Amino acid sequence: MRKPIALVTRIDEASEQEWRALLADQLPDENILCFRDMNGGQRKSAEIAIVADPNPAQVAELPGLAWIQSLWAGVERLVAELGAGAPPIVRLVDPELSRVMAEAVLAWTLYLHRDMPIYRRQQQDRVWEQQPYRHPSRYTVGILGLGALGMASAHRLKQAGFVVKGWSRSPKETSGVESFTGDDGLNAVLGGSDLVVCLMPLTDETRGLLDSRRFAAMMEGAALINFARGAIVVDADLIASLDAGHLSHAVLDVFHEEPLPAASPFWHHPKVTVLPHISAPTDQHTAAAIVAANIRAYRTTGELPQTVDIERGY
Amino acid sequence: MRKPIALVTRIDEASEQEWRALLADQLPDENILCFRDMNGGQRKSAEIAIVADPNPAQVAELPGLAWIQSLWAGVERLVAELGAGAPPIVRLVDPELSRVMAEAVLAWTLYLHRDMPIYRRQQQDRVWEQQPYRHPSRYTVGILGLGALGMASAHRLKQAGFVVKGWSRSPKETSGVESFTGDDGLNAVLGGSDLVVCLMPLTDETRGLLDSRRFAAMMEGAALINFARGAIVVDADLIASLDAGHLSHAVLDVFHEEPLPAASPFWHHPKVTVLPHISAPTDQHTAAAIVAANIRAYRTTGELPQTVDIERGY
Repeated sequence: MRKPIALVTRIDEASEQEWRALLADQLPDENILCFRDMNGGQRKSAEIAIVADPNPAQVAELPGLAWIQSLWAGVERLVAELGAGAPPIVRLVDPELSRVMAEAVLAWTLYLHRDMPIYRRQQQDRVWEQQPYRHPSRYTVGILGLGALGMASAHRLKQAGFVVKGWSRSPKETSGVESFTGDDGLNAVLGGSDLVVCLMPLTDETRGLLDSRRFAAMMEGAALINFARGAIVVDADLIASLDAGHLSHAVLDVFHEEPLPAASPFWHHPKVTVLPHISAPTDQHTAAAIVAANIRAYRTTGELPQTVDIERGY
Repeated sequence: MRKPIALVTRIDEASEQEWRALLADQLPDENILCFRDMNGGQRKSAEIAIVADPNPAQVAELPGLAWIQSLWAGVERLVAELGAGAPPIVRLVDPELSRVMAEAVLAWTLYLHRDMPIYRRQQQDRVWEQQPYRHPSRYTVGILGLGALGMASAHRLKQAGFVVKGWSRSPKETSGVESFTGDDGLNAVLGGSDLVVCLMPLTDETRGLLDSRRFAAMMEGAALINFARGAIVVDADLIASLDAGHLSHAVLDVFHEEPLPAASPFWHHPKVTVLPHISAPTDQHTAAAIVAANIRAYRTTGELPQTVDIERGY
């Protein structure tokens, strides 16, 4: 019998059992157990953990782990909570996740480009007024972060006719997308975009990156979409920029605290669209298949899939 | 000197002068005059009229017209107001108009598919709740009307991964779009679509076509987009279907009367998105170029561009 695989999550038990069933379907030769159901011996011998927002204390009770597979793409909390001594972490890289994120970026770009928030306000006031239409070739979207999600989104927007600029930590090559790096590059993208879409990972470098100085660098009337992590944005600075009339609108899917607390000023801000972290929901079926492929490859070759660079944070 | 071309519109004088300047730029050899500036002799000799919502009495003062070029794609009012004895009418067929309509169809399809009206309501109520995501391959859009606008929209939706069905008066061949015709075909499209997009011309056959019987044929929870003409929909029947909870939402860009009267129940209906006829605004530059090409071809060959079938109405 192979050493067990531990499923460690803080999600509700029914959802966890759903994951277990899907993974067991894909990996009939493996012994996948929910942490709560494992005895001491099983916990000691577990070789791989599949995790979704795990309790770090539970992970620490699995001393034999060779690696940890996250069911999420964003692993900044996992990295921070497990600390330096943790086993290597593999994050979920799912092409379907990139597709659905690119679809969300296109959907909410069109939401702003076709002036849906303005028409919504006009409807409330019974105002019949046509906003000037801008051809997408005269509408520039700046994408911050050119990983798998940013690249897929950039290509989808290009295909729809928008001008796309991108910024990333390391220089990226991609056809049709003017790509920038460094602090000057960031200001160039911010200052040249009608809409800035944040798709960066949360790291020590990106925490609080979008602050009053960066909003001031953006064009008068520009808009912001944050589909990455709430902590990249300094909330008070964003609200000040919206209230001053410098930024026109923000679409926020991620927040410092989730669910967004009832007291947050974002809920009723007329220039903010609040979404409950739905831009790119995990597709359990494709995710389970990818996790299973990682585990099968490890069983066959003994080699780990590409793991998270702890220094870099993603 | 060539016989003058009359520009006859009911739009404001500044906009009319803008059109005249654009057309004169494109047709430097032609003598293009606004109706209000023409003397009796010029009115008698005018050979072509370029019109946008013209006063029929003014068109009747141009007895020498060989044909009339509309600046609009929809000509049902022009056909009705000018009557049977009018000169042949050429409507605007602009590929840019098809592109921008297809963009609008995609934008508001994503608006519904990605549950934006629901998240808007949740934001008002400070509710954090994730709606189930549907892959576009499990979301069917039925397009009523497969003319230039409907075809462009169908292809754009296919490209985005949606399942597309189409219905038109005469059978149409198009790859990847299941196409229907006739009354049974209409009910098949209505009953098999999560979203129905109306892009039909307004004719005697389509006036009031979408009534309580047709809404009842639609799926429970389905949505409607009307980007064609308001009179195709029976408003009271639509509101009854929304209020009964059968249809989930309607996006309306066109109305029986425009601007939409302040007393209309659509303005404050929670399941209706009101747009001020902005789905496909005319691009004056591309439209002027197309009108100029029609006129140049007529001057060269003496042949009229394809004209409106008065019997059929479009």
